[in-house]
Amino acid sequence: MYSESSTIAAISTSMSEAGIGIVRISGEDAFQIADRIYRGKNNKRLSDQKSHTIHYGYIEENGETIDEVLVMLMRGPRTFTGEDTVEIDCHGGVYVLRRVLEACIHAGARPAQPGEFTKRAFLNGKMDLSQAEAVIDVIQSQNDYALKSSVSQLRGSVKKKIDDIRNKILYHTAFIESALDDPEHISIEGYAQVLERDVEELKGRLDSLLASADDGRVMKEGIKTVIVGKPNAGKSSILNMLLGEERAIVTDIAGTTRDILQEHMNLQGISLNIVDTAGIRKTDDRVEKIGVDRALSQAKEADLIIYVVDSSMPLDDNDRKIFQFITGKKAIILLNKSDLERRTGEEQIRQMCAERGMKDTPVISVSAKEEEGMEEMEHAVKELFYHGDLSFNSEVYITNARHKHELERAYGSLEKVLESIRMDMPEDFYSIDLMDAYESLGNITGETVGEDLVNEIFSKFCMGK
Amino acid sequence: MYSESSTIAAISTSMSEAGIGIVRISGEDAFQIADRIYRGKNNKRLSDQKSHTIHYGYIEENGETIDEVLVMLMRGPRTFTGEDTVEIDCHGGVYVLRRVLEACIHAGARPAQPGEFTKRAFLNGKMDLSQAEAVIDVIQSQNDYALKSSVSQLRGSVKKKIDDIRNKILYHTAFIESALDDPEHISIEGYAQVLERDVEELKGRLDSLLASADDGRVMKEGIKTVIVGKPNAGKSSILNMLLGEERAIVTDIAGTTRDILQEHMNLQGISLNIVDTAGIRKTDDRVEKIGVDRALSQAKEADLIIYVVDSSMPLDDNDRKIFQFITGKKAIILLNKSDLERRTGEEQIRQMCAERGMKDTPVISVSAKEEEGMEEMEHAVKELFYHGDLSFNSEVYITNARHKHELERAYGSLEKVLESIRMDMPEDFYSIDLMDAYESLGNITGETVGEDLVNEIFSKFCMGK
Repeated sequence: MYSESSTIAAISTSMSEAGIGIVRISGEDAFQIADRIYRGKNNKRLSDQKSHTIHYGYIEENGETIDEVLVMLMRGPRTFTGEDTVEIDCHGGVYVLRRVLEACIHAGARPAQPGEFTKRAFLNGKMDLSQAEAVIDVIQSQNDYALKSSVSQLRGSVKKKIDDIRNKILYHTAFIESALDDPEHISIEGYAQVLERDVEELKGRLDSLLASADDGRVMKEGIKTVIVGKPNAGKSSILNMLLGEERAIVTDIAGTTRDILQEHMNLQGISLNIVDTAGIRKTDDRVEKIGVDRALSQAKEADLIIYVVDSSMPLDDNDRKIFQFITGKKAIILLNKSDLERRTGEEQIRQMCAERGMKDTPVISVSAKEEEGMEEMEHAVKELFYHGDLSFNSEVYITNARHKHELERAYGSLEKVLESIRMDMPEDFYSIDLMDAYESLGNITGETVGEDLVNEIFSKFCMGK
Repeated sequence: MYSESSTIAAISTSMSEAGIGIVRISGEDAFQIADRIYRGKNNKRLSDQKSHTIHYGYIEENGETIDEVLVMLMRGPRTFTGEDTVEIDCHGGVYVLRRVLEACIHAGARPAQPGEFTKRAFLNGKMDLSQAEAVIDVIQSQNDYALKSSVSQLRGSVKKKIDDIRNKILYHTAFIESALDDPEHISIEGYAQVLERDVEELKGRLDSLLASADDGRVMKEGIKTVIVGKPNAGKSSILNMLLGEERAIVTDIAGTTRDILQEHMNLQGISLNIVDTAGIRKTDDRVEKIGVDRALSQAKEADLIIYVVDSSMPLDDNDRKIFQFITGKKAIILLNKSDLERRTGEEQIRQMCAERGMKDTPVISVSAKEEEGMEEMEHAVKELFYHGDLSFNSEVYITNARHKHELERAYGSLEKVLESIRMDMPEDFYSIDLMDAYESLGNITGETVGEDLVNEIFSKFCMGK
């Protein structure tokens, strides 16, 4: 742990025209620097004012007024960074913000690095590393689930879970050390059984955190969804229907190939990243075959497959091939063209699913033409991924790949502890692996991380945060 | 004048990811609305807190946390709008800001129109119309002169000048009315002479304000600069040299034609919008002739012509044609290629200028190759447009086309007053034109404007301002 003492400044709002822009200063000279460039009524000195107050005035340099501003004063440690902090609420022009920042720098601040305010918050003990990482997740949230999950982490939900586990581990390592140091007074008779039970319990906790990571990734990044089906089953109409329903931003990202188009949509707070694919059928045409292979390889990596079946046609070998492919994956089967005469029914599809151990796969009749079946489909997606509505009051979702990795390492260490117990190894063997688990978990909250990792994490932040 | 009582809310920072974003609420229910969505420590109620204080907490809706925030409370009338105002300092993500704004709206605010906060500041008498218009000019400022001039207007420099003139006009109309009402007690013997002297003086003041409008426009929009010269005189090298010197943003804007490229540069706080043109020479080539004609028509509209002469070549008929063209315009003549042997000297050029009544046109030896002469040129531009360094302490620059138009109208009305005096017309004739001038000037400060104009002006503002 180290603390840099210089006072930093940055533009904390974005560099495009808006009503308001903010220049933020943090560090022990923040108030003095603000005093040098601020002019209020009656020669008011900001450094004489109470914390958490707002002051109207002007930013000046060399006797010239740069902007009319509101200045927010917050004295450490009751601030985001834990340091004395000044926020200058300026007019939101690019040039004027640059000039105010320049004035701060001429008055003694140094330009902040990206993420440096949050880094200081972490280094000054205002938040742990999992909370600091949640800051950028809150900013980048694109849907309600991502936002809720990142705000929950910002409030310390991951930290709390991890701290609880670490405390229990620490208790056991301490006990083992004491017992080994002082065998006359501390008996470890029967201790292995106690430890085994506790480690099993902790492993269970790690397991459920790890189990949340898939849902967590999906929340944060969206559900990678691939639409498959035979040619002319109506895949593109389904896609259009989905996008037509959408109320948030739709972006068209040109895929890596001409044939694969990626769309992003927000379905009641769930992000779907949808890939439409070429129709799948057995073919001798070389170009078409490439398209089919691509569709299948996309489907392989998908979180969700939407399989569109043309219900006005009988099933054939191509469908059987697709069925084979979706077996064991999260999938929704849409019986399209429900407005036409049926040649393939829900029962028939359910039967095929049941034969392949997929009896829980939702089968929904839809009509892209009549825009029917959407609600049922949205419901099915939520059920598949979020088991209905998520509540963030108790549950914690791991959304950060780094956290997942450290949880896996800790899990592995605890497994080694159990192995040692079962092999009746000496107690200090338990200790070593327990401490490894303790450290891996400490990397999540940042208690045991090195400076390099800290720098790497914060360098990905935006400027001014 | 009217006042809308509903409470408004908007995102006041820009809609792209940043460290901090602000949602602003203004109106009589601002504190109550904030109370409905804010949760701080110990059930703190924002409406119980002191004005101009900052509060840490969470924005919640339906029991779910949307974001961790700082809330700034400012009680009217000591606020920008004059109304109770709450600024919610959120994480600067697009989605999270939308959600916080939504929460404000669900809690009773209505979405603000573009410019509505500033419009309320105007309607509530916190600023006059010229100050309100300066708000958007501050935000859009792209150079130091534009910023200084708009901040000066924001602080009321235009308002003050206009108010002084209007007060004097009002005094005279009041006097005339009184004298006409009560001829027994108030004599207007010799009054016409007094009025004539005063109106002359006021006309002089309007004249100098109008004279500042050209410089004002140039400050705000930049100097429209055209580089002309014979082919191969080195026009493009000069342009590159200028752009190479520049320390601010350079943008390439493709011109309306392939041949004309527009560049924007910042020269010590002065914006130059530079158009490079095809070389000018007498030609029979039809395509080339089009290029030459375009160059000449660009030059016709320019604020500044930079005429590049190749000093290693003797002057010829083409130069004489260009000379003819720049006569009477603001121009700088650059004798390029000063590193080569001279065939055209400064004296020769000065002689030609003197013959054409352009003895003050700066003639500067430069070498694009050696990058010499830049400083002298920058100095010359400043002299031509700003008469050296501008001081904003006393001088006022009219930068707004609407203001200029109203000044011209007022000027015309005062001329009519003088005419009536000279034609010995009855006193009530003076009154009518004086009142016209009074009203035109009132349109600048907004005291006599109608709702339509007010709405039109503020509709050009950005959202959240």
